[in-house]
Amino acid sequence: MGLFKHKGTVYTPVKDLDLGPFSTEFYLQANVKAPRMTGIWIKIFTLFLECPILGTLLLFILKGNNLIHKLITDADLKESPLYVPLHPFEDIEEKQVKSLDSSLSPQEKVQLAIDCMPISSEEKLDEETPSLFHWTIMDYSRAYNSGCLTPRQVAERFITAVDESTKSPLQMGFFIHYNADDILRQANESTTRYQKGKPISVLDGILVAVKDEIDCLPYPTTGGTKWLQDERRCMDDACCVKRLRLCGAIIVGKTNMHELGSGTSGINPHYGPTRNPYDRNKIAGGSSSGSASVVSAGLCPIALGVDGGGSVRMPAALCGVVGLKPTFARIPHAGVLPLNWTVGMVGILAGTVEDALIAYAAISGETPRYQSSGTPTKINLPLLSLTESISGIRLAKYGKWFNDCSDDVRTCCSKALNKLQDSYAWKIIDVTIPEIEAMRLAHYVTIGSECSTSLDSFKEKSFAELGWDVRVAQSIYGSFSSLEYLKAQRIRNRQLQFHMKIFDEADVIVSPTTGVTAYPIQDDALKTGELDYVNGAALVRYSIAGNFLGLPAVTVPVGYDKLGLPIGLQFIGRPWSEATLIHLAYAVQVMCMSEYRKPELYYDLLRG
Amino acid sequence: MGLFKHKGTVYTPVKDLDLGPFSTEFYLQANVKAPRMTGIWIKIFTLFLECPILGTLLLFILKGNNLIHKLITDADLKESPLYVPLHPFEDIEEKQVKSLDSSLSPQEKVQLAIDCMPISSEEKLDEETPSLFHWTIMDYSRAYNSGCLTPRQVAERFITAVDESTKSPLQMGFFIHYNADDILRQANESTTRYQKGKPISVLDGILVAVKDEIDCLPYPTTGGTKWLQDERRCMDDACCVKRLRLCGAIIVGKTNMHELGSGTSGINPHYGPTRNPYDRNKIAGGSSSGSASVVSAGLCPIALGVDGGGSVRMPAALCGVVGLKPTFARIPHAGVLPLNWTVGMVGILAGTVEDALIAYAAISGETPRYQSSGTPTKINLPLLSLTESISGIRLAKYGKWFNDCSDDVRTCCSKALNKLQDSYAWKIIDVTIPEIEAMRLAHYVTIGSECSTSLDSFKEKSFAELGWDVRVAQSIYGSFSSLEYLKAQRIRNRQLQFHMKIFDEADVIVSPTTGVTAYPIQDDALKTGELDYVNGAALVRYSIAGNFLGLPAVTVPVGYDKLGLPIGLQFIGRPWSEATLIHLAYAVQVMCMSEYRKPELYYDLLRG
Repeated sequence: MGLFKHKGTVYTPVKDLDLGPFSTEFYLQANVKAPRMTGIWIKIFTLFLECPILGTLLLFILKGNNLIHKLITDADLKESPLYVPLHPFEDIEEKQVKSLDSSLSPQEKVQLAIDCMPISSEEKLDEETPSLFHWTIMDYSRAYNSGCLTPRQVAERFITAVDESTKSPLQMGFFIHYNADDILRQANESTTRYQKGKPISVLDGILVAVKDEIDCLPYPTTGGTKWLQDERRCMDDACCVKRLRLCGAIIVGKTNMHELGSGTSGINPHYGPTRNPYDRNKIAGGSSSGSASVVSAGLCPIALGVDGGGSVRMPAALCGVVGLKPTFARIPHAGVLPLNWTVGMVGILAGTVEDALIAYAAISGETPRYQSSGTPTKINLPLLSLTESISGIRLAKYGKWFNDCSDDVRTCCSKALNKLQDSYAWKIIDVTIPEIEAMRLAHYVTIGSECSTSLDSFKEKSFAELGWDVRVAQSIYGSFSSLEYLKAQRIRNRQLQFHMKIFDEADVIVSPTTGVTAYPIQDDALKTGELDYVNGAALVRYSIAGNFLGLPAVTVPVGYDKLGLPIGLQFIGRPWSEATLIHLAYAVQVMCMSEYRKPELYYDLLRG
Repeated sequence: MGLFKHKGTVYTPVKDLDLGPFSTEFYLQANVKAPRMTGIWIKIFTLFLECPILGTLLLFILKGNNLIHKLITDADLKESPLYVPLHPFEDIEEKQVKSLDSSLSPQEKVQLAIDCMPISSEEKLDEETPSLFHWTIMDYSRAYNSGCLTPRQVAERFITAVDESTKSPLQMGFFIHYNADDILRQANESTTRYQKGKPISVLDGILVAVKDEIDCLPYPTTGGTKWLQDERRCMDDACCVKRLRLCGAIIVGKTNMHELGSGTSGINPHYGPTRNPYDRNKIAGGSSSGSASVVSAGLCPIALGVDGGGSVRMPAALCGVVGLKPTFARIPHAGVLPLNWTVGMVGILAGTVEDALIAYAAISGETPRYQSSGTPTKINLPLLSLTESISGIRLAKYGKWFNDCSDDVRTCCSKALNKLQDSYAWKIIDVTIPEIEAMRLAHYVTIGSECSTSLDSFKEKSFAELGWDVRVAQSIYGSFSSLEYLKAQRIRNRQLQFHMKIFDEADVIVSPTTGVTAYPIQDDALKTGELDYVNGAALVRYSIAGNFLGLPAVTVPVGYDKLGLPIGLQFIGRPWSEATLIHLAYAVQVMCMSEYRKPELYYDLLRG
């Protein structure tokens, strides 16, 4: 007893910690001790890890080197575990919102979202250029209604574009499955509805892509693997997909993803890496890689992703689109691969904030997920405008954390922040968020334990078919003890208290979305997948609170690095404050609009 | 990979299982593979278990032999985890109840409980014999009010009795700490209040004992150990103790318990075994051993215990008293040793059902324990009477489980059940509760993991001071993986669904409280503690749903075995149905009243 016990962190009770700007709390930078690995080295490493005794020893060393023992396993904590970041529904007071009953139909909700839009449809009918460079849902809707374009035509252009994008030289890796017949069938039905003058909603005829972690007929759900679809049959649409279909949306296929969501690069050895429309030699980010890149490339105005550790927001930032992860339990989880239970949820990728709002209205509103759930009964939608009601917003900023990113990201996000203060009189509140690195590790223990448990029955038969990087991840995931899982939940409790205290002083927390921009896809990673925990840690640096604490968060593009790759700014909000987040994202979008640049690869399906 | 993977149970989805009497579900009897161990053998075994590699191997074999691998580790489950058995508060419709606001003061609640009593105080003033053989709270209150007896006199008699009981030949092991000065100080204050004609409530001057797992000044909280009080100082009263003090109760000391609650016998090697007032050579049961035995011996009308795996109900049954474990989160947990977070809670031991009702009224009403809590806002108290409203109650009975106990227990409980059908026209609904043994193991993994995590920071320094049986328990507790913990929570989800379905058909589930009656305290166990997992499994057989699913449960004495040792009958209710349970227990008590026998050791403090 005690032989393997080291000196763990003794955590100070939450109430005794100073969260102000002059706090003595130390900002611990991630110091990931794991070299980048691909090819033969990752294979050898994996086989070692999977050995019964050597693997245990190796994992023990790995966990120790990466501070899991110090910050979690051997930590001394007073707080009890917080198992599910499920917030009791609060009808929070938000300015300038339209409040709606969550039991309305998706079509009704979408109509209410349209009523929140700043510009009426008439005013924009004549414009020839899209807002930003993305054609929006409203643009398509106007075109369909005017009769100058049909959903059938757009679907045909889409199929041609995707066919081209899959082939050499592009090989974008957008989709795992898409089915031209199924797309055209839906497009024909939509076209008929418009011809009869009876479109269902503005989403009628809108192309929507769905991450291959979400059930959607007639496609199998692979989760980015080669085998999961055979072990777990897709029998029905996920709830969020059903809601989009009810609005008339055309589901165009299942987007590529990092295998099992177990990585952040989006390099999938089975279906090819998803490439970034801004530079096809760069990653799109993960794990909702395909959903981000199809929106970025103009193929769909909106797409669905799943965000368990930043998996919607990271690729959104890297591909220059908007990414929204609502409060835990705001969107029903039914029909999503159960890769974890307490951190992941459906999120939205969209070309513009307005489109994110429409999609959010369409799919929000909980069906009970947990027995003890206080089901939210109301949804606020922001009345998008830049009147004085948007002024005076208080942004909490933790400087050391905010600045812990590449020079380009720091410069760009700081510049945006300065402009926001100038343009809208927003205020920066300097704060300290303690133990961010402990939170990242606690989240890793949590998502890893849940993922490993969830996939356990497939382990023996199918794990040999996984990419090598995901096999390594699964080995680590399977190595956690119940003590580590429970201590991680105690850290969760602490962090929730920290964050809720900060929300007493500020409206949102602001940060970059990722610590780095899209990095190169190297050839040696294509077949084996790539282990790159250093870049991985930089990518997820700002994502964790959204997942681990169930807080809503949004990312919106604010500029580009020296190579022209997109950079995102993130707002994290208090529970149920999506309306505020969308409103702030809209203000940022308006401010940055003139600077937005089209990606290298962009399909203009509206103009053909 | 796969080397240590065996064939696990594949669980059928809940909806496909038949819970009716002719279900093909197999009742798996516990087949505990662990010999009774004490003395030198338990020491050798413990040291082996604590070896790094040999211990791991040994634990692997132990877990395998005892079906943990088959039923949990390697199981294939569809349900998501249910982490905390926290039920959304439901204002359930119960017949013949008084509904009260949970924000009332403890004194007000106690008065409302008195108003629920079947016999007004006047009617009983002249009686010379107690109800059952226990003097009740009302008996004391009447005596105090009449002036024929003072709290001071009772306190003095109590101190004399306890002093005697600690010495040879009795050595009952009732208390870990009691302080005559503190008791007399409280008694004097109470006496003064009566002299002024201003008692606070009927609980004024009532002696209450508190399990040494609950904070209570001026005593340290040992949890049954020799060291915990030095590592974790008791700084305040627990919330439940505060509430009793507000009613004027006299807290008489801290009762003996199985060390760290990690056993069911109540044999504590540091403070002596708690002995059973019905036969001092028998165990009192655990872990709230002292609280059950002081009530049984007439020293206190009520006592507080903590029930994490039947720890209130088992000793109550073995000592012939009433034991009540309310719905999870009904009683605030603040100030109770955090030995686990999701299964344990404060419970009540009482000589009569009426007294259990008064204590329940005094300490119920939640202060938020979990962020996501739907705080209960109402408490129902039963209007105790045997009018026709009590007839027609539907008791769910799972025959194979009900009968899986000693002959004496089975005969006695079956007889009681027949009488209940005859006396009150209660109906038996035959049901099947699948996977009871899997639930026991899942609960064991849960409480073990939580206990081990909770005590982790003391492990290195202090575990060598634990009794040998508890060292073994802690070794096993520390051996669970996060996968095992999470699968246990998936089983929890299944079981909650089973039980809620049964509550669609029946008002309560009925079972014996324990599978065996009090067994002998053997000399070889006194110094080392005793490992007896076979008897342990029989003791907890019927307790698990109350803890693992957070359901309320009550045990009430219904007879005796051939040796004259008490037997309890248990009712398990739907969430928040304590009023129904107390009412049913009252009906059982009235029916069995004529058969009750006093224990061998009984102190009549009221008559001196």
